[in-house]
Amino acid sequence: MTGTLYGLGIGPGDPELITLKALRILQACPVLAYPAPEGGASLVRQSAAPHLAGAQTEIVIETPMRPDRFPAQDVYDRAADEIGRHLQAGEDVAVLCEGDPFFYGSFMYLFARLAERWPTEVVPGVSSLTACAARLAMPLAARNDVLTVLPAPLDDAALTARLETADAVAIIKLGRHFERVRALLKSLGLAERARYIAHATMEVEQAVELDQADPDAVPYFSMILVHRRGTAWQ
Amino acid sequence: MTGTLYGLGIGPGDPELITLKALRILQACPVLAYPAPEGGASLVRQSAAPHLAGAQTEIVIETPMRPDRFPAQDVYDRAADEIGRHLQAGEDVAVLCEGDPFFYGSFMYLFARLAERWPTEVVPGVSSLTACAARLAMPLAARNDVLTVLPAPLDDAALTARLETADAVAIIKLGRHFERVRALLKSLGLAERARYIAHATMEVEQAVELDQADPDAVPYFSMILVHRRGTAWQ
Repeated sequence: MTGTLYGLGIGPGDPELITLKALRILQACPVLAYPAPEGGASLVRQSAAPHLAGAQTEIVIETPMRPDRFPAQDVYDRAADEIGRHLQAGEDVAVLCEGDPFFYGSFMYLFARLAERWPTEVVPGVSSLTACAARLAMPLAARNDVLTVLPAPLDDAALTARLETADAVAIIKLGRHFERVRALLKSLGLAERARYIAHATMEVEQAVELDQADPDAVPYFSMILVHRRGTAWQ
Repeated sequence: MTGTLYGLGIGPGDPELITLKALRILQACPVLAYPAPEGGASLVRQSAAPHLAGAQTEIVIETPMRPDRFPAQDVYDRAADEIGRHLQAGEDVAVLCEGDPFFYGSFMYLFARLAERWPTEVVPGVSSLTACAARLAMPLAARNDVLTVLPAPLDDAALTARLETADAVAIIKLGRHFERVRALLKSLGLAERARYIAHATMEVEQAVELDQADPDAVPYFSMILVHRRGTAWQ
């Protein structure tokens, strides 16, 4: 009997936003794996911490900090090898994922390496997309709205084309692109309809007007929501 | 002291995909409200049922079945009045929402009527978007992919324009539009990259190839996921 690989959506940050299913599997697996920045603390491990007794084997997937560059794939080669050894030994392994495993998450690199070989189950979680909308008290999309998720590292032309054709837009991965995105929204006349939030549902959550945000302090885990047509749901 | 209005994301269907936070509030509120089709059973009430002891006041928001036409707003006027009376009397009211309250949900009609007047909290839930991806074992979006959510009732020109510019697309609200959408995907050469799923995470879940689906049996709660560029995450 080999083990099962679980991709667990832990939710957006607040430890209470984990699902009953993810919690059950989180506590039952003998082995946990999660990403952490090189030399830094793992955000997703912090979200899960209140639910852990500390008796599980933990695999830290250290990923180098390289703004806008995707982690070297050898990090995931090595992590997949280590996880595979536990599965081969009959141990279930839970990979902890910020938000949802398949919504812009690094779990998919492990999924690509392991899912064909081992029994795999993905447990969906509350994504940053709906968490940000909830905390901003701003409905995402209604009726027949087109909703688009746009990574901020895209260039101005790509961002503009989508901002002009979607009804509602979530701009993610802001980080050092914030100032450029804010200027773009102003030039398109959309700044008044946009709201900014960082670290939604976490203790350090910050939701401020676009003009109040400090561009030098915008983290990767932040989002701007824009309704091009205003309040379509009213 | 007036009551608080809660918009509770109950998750996509599986009762175990509720969050700890939504469960706590669900069980603590003296009054629950939820939508149901006229004369039919409420899907979201069914998802919540295993968590309820039956001792709470329940407000059923009966919405007429009108394909593609949005419910007459007087339904929400009346529901908001009834909910408002409980809030005025100091009772907390939880509105049960399929998936997430702000992701194409009818909660926003109540939110628009009540949130300015009463203390309101929205608790995000696992949306159908990430639940369908998990059940199809199909990552939604990676890296700098543009992800677009498209309601199927949009016309062919609108659908085509977005299908040609997004990297990943979730087509929702299929119902009687399935056959037209399938034909469109074939004409765009995208049918091979598309997967179909209905009632994700529920007992009646059905995930089949696009060609195997019966157009006459496609429900409203169904989705097609398409990756225009294939497996960008590998």
